[in-house]
Amino acid sequence: MPTEQLVDVAILGAGSAGLYALGQVKRKTENFVLVDGGELGTTCARVGCMPSKAVIQIADDFHRRAIFDREGIEGGDGLSILGEEALEHVQDLRDIFVDKVLSTSTDDMGEEFIPEYARFLEPNVLQVGEQRIRAKSIVIATGSAPVVPDAWKAFGERILTTDEIFELEALPQSMAVIGLGVIGLELGQAFRRLGVQITGIDQLETIGHLDDPEVSQTAIELIGKEMPLWLGHAATIREGDGGKLAVSAGKRSVEVEKVLVCIGRRPNLDRLALHNAGIALNDEGIPNYNPNTMQIEDKPVFIAGDVNADRPLLHEAADEGRIAGINAVARKPVAFRRKTPLFITFSDPNIVQLGMRYAELDQDKTVVGSVTFGMLGRALIMGRNKGQLRLYAEKSTGRLLGASLVAPHGEHLGHLLTWCIEQNLTVQQMARMPFYHPVIEEAIQPVVRDLVAQLGLGSEEYPPDLELL
Amino acid sequence: MPTEQLVDVAILGAGSAGLYALGQVKRKTENFVLVDGGELGTTCARVGCMPSKAVIQIADDFHRRAIFDREGIEGGDGLSILGEEALEHVQDLRDIFVDKVLSTSTDDMGEEFIPEYARFLEPNVLQVGEQRIRAKSIVIATGSAPVVPDAWKAFGERILTTDEIFELEALPQSMAVIGLGVIGLELGQAFRRLGVQITGIDQLETIGHLDDPEVSQTAIELIGKEMPLWLGHAATIREGDGGKLAVSAGKRSVEVEKVLVCIGRRPNLDRLALHNAGIALNDEGIPNYNPNTMQIEDKPVFIAGDVNADRPLLHEAADEGRIAGINAVARKPVAFRRKTPLFITFSDPNIVQLGMRYAELDQDKTVVGSVTFGMLGRALIMGRNKGQLRLYAEKSTGRLLGASLVAPHGEHLGHLLTWCIEQNLTVQQMARMPFYHPVIEEAIQPVVRDLVAQLGLGSEEYPPDLELL
Repeated sequence: MPTEQLVDVAILGAGSAGLYALGQVKRKTENFVLVDGGELGTTCARVGCMPSKAVIQIADDFHRRAIFDREGIEGGDGLSILGEEALEHVQDLRDIFVDKVLSTSTDDMGEEFIPEYARFLEPNVLQVGEQRIRAKSIVIATGSAPVVPDAWKAFGERILTTDEIFELEALPQSMAVIGLGVIGLELGQAFRRLGVQITGIDQLETIGHLDDPEVSQTAIELIGKEMPLWLGHAATIREGDGGKLAVSAGKRSVEVEKVLVCIGRRPNLDRLALHNAGIALNDEGIPNYNPNTMQIEDKPVFIAGDVNADRPLLHEAADEGRIAGINAVARKPVAFRRKTPLFITFSDPNIVQLGMRYAELDQDKTVVGSVTFGMLGRALIMGRNKGQLRLYAEKSTGRLLGASLVAPHGEHLGHLLTWCIEQNLTVQQMARMPFYHPVIEEAIQPVVRDLVAQLGLGSEEYPPDLELL
Repeated sequence: MPTEQLVDVAILGAGSAGLYALGQVKRKTENFVLVDGGELGTTCARVGCMPSKAVIQIADDFHRRAIFDREGIEGGDGLSILGEEALEHVQDLRDIFVDKVLSTSTDDMGEEFIPEYARFLEPNVLQVGEQRIRAKSIVIATGSAPVVPDAWKAFGERILTTDEIFELEALPQSMAVIGLGVIGLELGQAFRRLGVQITGIDQLETIGHLDDPEVSQTAIELIGKEMPLWLGHAATIREGDGGKLAVSAGKRSVEVEKVLVCIGRRPNLDRLALHNAGIALNDEGIPNYNPNTMQIEDKPVFIAGDVNADRPLLHEAADEGRIAGINAVARKPVAFRRKTPLFITFSDPNIVQLGMRYAELDQDKTVVGSVTFGMLGRALIMGRNKGQLRLYAEKSTGRLLGASLVAPHGEHLGHLLTWCIEQNLTVQQMARMPFYHPVIEEAIQPVVRDLVAQLGLGSEEYPPDLELL
């Protein structure tokens, strides 16, 4: 029998979830290993949240020139994007964020960090490169990777995912974006604004994972004004003319230089040989685990972050990683409350969903309030008065259940509304909050007032937002 | 004895507070008059919130060119402001907002609206133009007007206030801004960004009414980079060369085309002859009134909006107007809860104060947490990573008491934090809220975590923001 290294905890994956787990593990033991054979620096900083926001920022700044004439700013027509410089700026920012992660994590680690992939040999035993490691607990935080159908891989460098797009040194002239979820919408719109001819394609009839039919329609109309959206048909790709790719969906076809594939991310579970640990996968291809403890079944194995495919968001990965880390060194796993779901697509306008989704509502027990942004003073001044906000409230209590919106500064409205749900606020309580003037938050005001009226919660005597002392 | 018109309610002033009062009065009686001899359309829409935000929006959009080079956007140097067009855009927007107010208020009114000034003859009796009106209740909502010392009025059109600045047809080459409260800062910085040589002057050592010494210092540093701020000395004005005005403060002097005077607003009480109603003024020159009922002493007279000089903000005027309107037709005045104070200066970065002010805190019973925006990811991406946020929490309970900040997107942080105070949230409860990534709201996270630690509120065992199920 080969020598085994004995550790209290093995953390598989040095991404956000793994590093957050590590923070908690370190509080209890120095006998751990952190294992990662892939690129370091986290999905968020390398290829996710951060570089995408950098592209979006440039795109938004450049796009504002559309309003310059009206505002009395001359020379907007003379603005242009230097693709190389713009992409370099994105890469510079990305490098800052990646360096910041590395300098506070693996850079400082000694032998506890092993730059190899791990594979289960048996429960509690891992093969990590040449080493055999026996761990009392294991945290699986191996992240996820973009899905690209094998047939498309044959098109080589013309097929992009988020792993490649931030490495580009020049902007393509044309690009199809296949998959219009968060990533496809954010990057599709941003690259469109940088001057790339974008065709957006999704086999669904909605975008940004919106399931509220009205908000979905509004979002499609607004984003569809900037770039063609081909919805409802799966895409196929074949060789086109002059080195281009011909991308078709339904009866439409376009020839493009590049294709950005954003049809989802697959959990990085394949290399782990989970069957050797006696861990089975459910119908979604994920081990069964408890989202409050992150524990897989009743095993000393925890699964945190994008690898469990539940909430692929940094702030959720941070929670999951810490819960997994705490429980990996606990005598008995402890259950933690999970936060109210909040999902933001940083398109323009932002697409935000929070709390209960439309499809989850019992329509008989729910009232819906809605507002559009056309006449909202501040939005009008900003030249961003496009969008729709829908709030869902529980009929019996008036409690805010959820919201769906495509709105200017929706990210901020999203926080405000999600915090209301966390506090179990009713629409009447919300109506009584201060709304400054003129701000985007004022969009919420008529909706909560309308919901108070719909629910008969207000007094006959006084406006619903004034509270007797 | 001349004929008297008898009415249930006379509302003096057709501004925001008066119109909100009217809305409530109309629910109970059709026998009212609305009296206003001044310009219609509300301070907010004509000369306040709205046109100032329009100037700020243009200024901010134009100012972004400073970051274009770095972002790979070419041609920023070729941008220029067409002063006439920019000012016309502001006026166009203002007209939209004014028309919207008028079309839903006085435009539709018959004889109930009297375009005259009112003057008390005796309690309950007013002289309004040629008419004598006896009113069971009276709502004073006459607003306020910019203060300009008499000596300065002699300089004629070279002296501007908010009443005149939005009427300009061309940008001045240079302008001194005297008084760096909300209005002076907003307009000073915005006109600076449009290319006007601005000198900012205030006799105080702070700006934007900030009383938190650290945040004040940060604000002075940040805004002071864009334009000279002469603090701590009162300004004097005399004739300069070539039709210019020479403005001095302390040992410094500058010659300018125009002077924008923003040293405060005086309640429009002078014309009312309040003594005839037996109403005395207190040391601040305001009648004594109850801010929860808006009633003056025990008289059937109510005072709402800017005229009471308490919270000169649209959303507060709306509350005060409605409370006054409700009570003007109530058998007995009813007391309403007032909202948590929230004050926003829409400078860049925004200056925000909410809840208890620094000077109001009992420092022995308060803990303060602070963060700067230098390394906040999203702020860095935006090129807006300048600012400071300070939170005040009650030692004994951990409750958030107030905040002072100069921050990018501070207006949104301001809403989030004010709503927390309205809910009596503790810093521990706030730490448990979802913070998305990467967003400006994340600035709050380390501060509340730090306050939880300072207060010893967290468990030894778990991070303060994770909550056991």
